[in-house]
Amino acid sequence: MPSISPLAPAAFPEMPPVAGVRLSTAAAGIRYAGRTDVLLVLFDPGTAVAGVFTRSKCPSAPVDWCRARIKGAAASALVVNSGNANAFTGKSGRAATKLTAATAAKAAGCKPDKVFLASTGVIGEPLDATKFADVMERLVDDAAAGGWDRAAKAIMTTDTFPKGAAAIVRIGSGVVTVCGIAKGAGMIAPDMGTMLSFVFTDAPIAPSVLRGLLRQGVEDTFNAVTIDGDTSTSDTLLAFATGAAASRGVAKITSAADPRLAAFRKGFNAVLANLAEQVARDGEGARKLVEIVVEGAKSKRSARRIALSIANSPLVKTAIAGEDANWGRVVMAVGKAGEPADRDRLSIWFGGIRVAHKGARDPAYDEAAVSAAMKKPEIALKVGLGLGKGRDRVLTCDLTKEYVAINGDYRS
Amino acid sequence: MPSISPLAPAAFPEMPPVAGVRLSTAAAGIRYAGRTDVLLVLFDPGTAVAGVFTRSKCPSAPVDWCRARIKGAAASALVVNSGNANAFTGKSGRAATKLTAATAAKAAGCKPDKVFLASTGVIGEPLDATKFADVMERLVDDAAAGGWDRAAKAIMTTDTFPKGAAAIVRIGSGVVTVCGIAKGAGMIAPDMGTMLSFVFTDAPIAPSVLRGLLRQGVEDTFNAVTIDGDTSTSDTLLAFATGAAASRGVAKITSAADPRLAAFRKGFNAVLANLAEQVARDGEGARKLVEIVVEGAKSKRSARRIALSIANSPLVKTAIAGEDANWGRVVMAVGKAGEPADRDRLSIWFGGIRVAHKGARDPAYDEAAVSAAMKKPEIALKVGLGLGKGRDRVLTCDLTKEYVAINGDYRS
Repeated sequence: MPSISPLAPAAFPEMPPVAGVRLSTAAAGIRYAGRTDVLLVLFDPGTAVAGVFTRSKCPSAPVDWCRARIKGAAASALVVNSGNANAFTGKSGRAATKLTAATAAKAAGCKPDKVFLASTGVIGEPLDATKFADVMERLVDDAAAGGWDRAAKAIMTTDTFPKGAAAIVRIGSGVVTVCGIAKGAGMIAPDMGTMLSFVFTDAPIAPSVLRGLLRQGVEDTFNAVTIDGDTSTSDTLLAFATGAAASRGVAKITSAADPRLAAFRKGFNAVLANLAEQVARDGEGARKLVEIVVEGAKSKRSARRIALSIANSPLVKTAIAGEDANWGRVVMAVGKAGEPADRDRLSIWFGGIRVAHKGARDPAYDEAAVSAAMKKPEIALKVGLGLGKGRDRVLTCDLTKEYVAINGDYRS
Repeated sequence: MPSISPLAPAAFPEMPPVAGVRLSTAAAGIRYAGRTDVLLVLFDPGTAVAGVFTRSKCPSAPVDWCRARIKGAAASALVVNSGNANAFTGKSGRAATKLTAATAAKAAGCKPDKVFLASTGVIGEPLDATKFADVMERLVDDAAAGGWDRAAKAIMTTDTFPKGAAAIVRIGSGVVTVCGIAKGAGMIAPDMGTMLSFVFTDAPIAPSVLRGLLRQGVEDTFNAVTIDGDTSTSDTLLAFATGAAASRGVAKITSAADPRLAAFRKGFNAVLANLAEQVARDGEGARKLVEIVVEGAKSKRSARRIALSIANSPLVKTAIAGEDANWGRVVMAVGKAGEPADRDRLSIWFGGIRVAHKGARDPAYDEAAVSAAMKKPEIALKVGLGLGKGRDRVLTCDLTKEYVAINGDYRS
């Protein structure tokens, strides 16, 4: 087991309970010994749900299951397991999702179509969903408010620390809570609600408004994080709004034009951004958190593409692992992005120090200062294209020998 | 210095001289100590040239130089240096190309516009082209037929072995020779005439025909090889046809419809394919040569995209490094390609053994046999999509800790 990422937060954050949400975890023995691997979340009646999923053409069975039910926009329960992704498991995979939902629905006293599912772990191995039957009754009995750290731990795979984030937001005269957990590590690329993440709020929000919030929110958070450019078959981000704060006098938000939404959006996005950053901080083998800012592009979209080209370049990532401000490779990655770029206008900064300017090495640059900046655990890499006003930001991590070790030995 | 790739050919091939082509090498001290780093090639009058170059938006100064002159289609000399790519060097880079060409033209007694240039090595450091002046006279004096191994060695950077290939081709009643050299290693991706490669023939071929040959030839050779998905600023493939075989009675090929072209094309493409495979065999840190075949796709283009998605996936490449037939990651890579794919029709073979069939693990698959296949230095990975007749093939290598070590320490 790899040790905890050197980029991990000092501790799991303080996270308050969310009214209308109860959690419990269990060890169902899916794959791991001596740890929890199932999370059950129960929702009060009237809970709205919205989701974004992997764009993979070969999605996992749970992704298919959720996609088919997300339009109903109502959730009673969420079952997440680690250890097995139930992906590329054919008919048995579909049967496993059906059985899991039925088991949970029976124990929780709800409809199977209101049970949402996510699985993470090995691909292609059949998931023995009968194992959930053994623990489901107890999971339902044990379900209680809070316990976010235990929930975040139960869904980990190669993660080295549990990921959680919370925000308290004032909506009009009332206060609501947003709590989220995530798991990530490898196979992370911005092709949707990267990895598994679940966000919960007691705010009373109509499903259509929640859907819009989520779609906009992922764009500059989870979709702006990349570890290795690989896209999981299982990427799932679900947001649940219980509406329980209505009983405390918070009026329901039914329109995206509601002025109270701005504050909520800010808190909601902050939770997504915090979780996404933790995913980057736990990139497999990561020793450096790398923030890539591209500015002066023709458009934000163009800046994003260039930033991702840099963030996914193995040569840039290995250079950063080697604490080498190798801006030549940044030029290479800008060039291969296929977006408008003019070598003779390009400027590049590492750690705030300009190393290249207008198409050549910056004559003033201080190698010692750059070298010191590269030794830090957080590296800021900025590229100025000098073409327009498009700006974007992407988070990634370095590519180390440990990444290769983790992923070369994963199944064995 | 890394040791020679375990995938290297046993020896540099026997390569005959090409009539009308003379070569010489020298140590100009561009960057390396104790080795040659300049190659000069002189061509007899009437030599045709065609080229394909990187699609990078930030090409090196020599790429710009060649692009501006390739339409002239006539070459007198070629100067290649290793140690410095003369890329992202701004005005000084342009001045360096001009000076290099002028120096070579003066010594060789030709026009600068008929001197072609290529540089490979570090990006962003100014290239001191005055160093070529010191060795150019001697390079011209020493130029002689043959010596392909020395030529291939002079252009190496992180390559662990020199790369050459040759073919003898009958054109009508005569015989012509095709000889090529290449350098590669990292920063290899199919975005053009990947890396540096130079192919020489004494066949009398009109420039327009040579151009067509080259464009078609790269498609399934150099453009079907990827090491790390990164595209160099300097990728250059030049083909030179001296026409010297005309003096031996081989009539000039002036049309792509000439029936004699088929045999020549076969030999020419074999040289390109051989060189491209050697580039994959010398991928930085490579321990496995991986052939990825995708069949049953909607089209060849779709098959290519899926094959490249697999070939560039860090998770697939690290799994192969770990000798793990992790077909789940192959499913992931198929899924993220964005091309038509149906999980329930997908089959996957490692080393000729079917491990997955119609959307699930193949129940008959023998783990021990697959495990034995994965220990071999050459791994065949085949994906059947079951959708159409599109088929393609891509070569790559595994992703090892050595890749990270080589690229993390390159500049330091």
